[in-house]
Amino acid sequence: MRVLGIDPGLTRCGLGVVDSSGGRAMSLVAVGVARSATDLPIAERLHAIGTEIDAWLDLHRPDAVAVERVFSQHNVRTVMGTAQVSGVAMVAAARRGLPVALHTPSEVKAAVSGSGRADKAQVAAMVVRLLRLDATPKPADASDALALAICHVLRGGAQSRIDAALAAARATRRQGTLA
Amino acid sequence: MRVLGIDPGLTRCGLGVVDSSGGRAMSLVAVGVARSATDLPIAERLHAIGTEIDAWLDLHRPDAVAVERVFSQHNVRTVMGTAQVSGVAMVAAARRGLPVALHTPSEVKAAVSGSGRADKAQVAAMVVRLLRLDATPKPADASDALALAICHVLRGGAQSRIDAALAAARATRRQGTLA
Repeated sequence: MRVLGIDPGLTRCGLGVVDSSGGRAMSLVAVGVARSATDLPIAERLHAIGTEIDAWLDLHRPDAVAVERVFSQHNVRTVMGTAQVSGVAMVAAARRGLPVALHTPSEVKAAVSGSGRADKAQVAAMVVRLLRLDATPKPADASDALALAICHVLRGGAQSRIDAALAAARATRRQGTLA
Repeated sequence: MRVLGIDPGLTRCGLGVVDSSGGRAMSLVAVGVARSATDLPIAERLHAIGTEIDAWLDLHRPDAVAVERVFSQHNVRTVMGTAQVSGVAMVAAARRGLPVALHTPSEVKAAVSGSGRADKAQVAAMVVRLLRLDATPKPADASDALALAICHVLRGGAQSRIDAALAAARATRRQGTLA
């Protein structure tokens, strides 16, 4: 199973692709960030990030997409942009019929490091260890996206397959309705 | 100038298209709501609303899109979904090279009714009057979307033309970069 993790953000949106070969065995496929210039209008910033996410989906063809669940209690100054990017990311995946899973930061910490209260450095160290990397991917958004993908692999094997089957069944039903 | 107003929402997303023929002269082209079933996963709900917005853009070919600006101070239970839909709406417009304007609820009230503190009924009554309708469009989201489009016409004639010119210039630059 190949998972694309997305850490939504308007200035930097983390993107990380991980291949799982069963259990805790997994490997890095790609990691990076989509960026948008802060002086562009919001619609064009979202479009730039969306275009990059589309390109990653087309290039890496993941079986599932894991997106960080955004809460309105977060940083009020940036939460709207973060929520908007998460919406764009989810639609990009749904348009391709891919199952989308949302994981909270606590769920990611717990799945990756064993503790929901782990700090960022501990989670990043586990990302390096699980993927057998030489160093922590930078910026932090890139490492966070890998943590999301790893979380999805560790939490979600069976659940993802059920979700994928349900999504496929709904897509078939929808096509039936349109036909 | 033809404007599509979008009142973002996950359960009901208001859509209203208005033609302006200069000054306060304008007419209704279409009004309605995009809906998504509350029992679907969030990604599929966003995809359903996004597909409907795409269909309205393709059918009505507006010159500009006006979206309600979402604030994080709003209803915390629904604000995330509203922000996500607004992101999907903005990208749908930006993908077509259309200028996107954001208007706050106060700006809409002030532009349509003359007072930023007008209540919903007063704004709805002005929508009926300005578009010479027989009755207030239902549900309220549909009427709110028309108010957004009207606000854009009344506030934004000159500004929209500037924004459209800038967006076109940026699109040309972008194509130059890609070529």
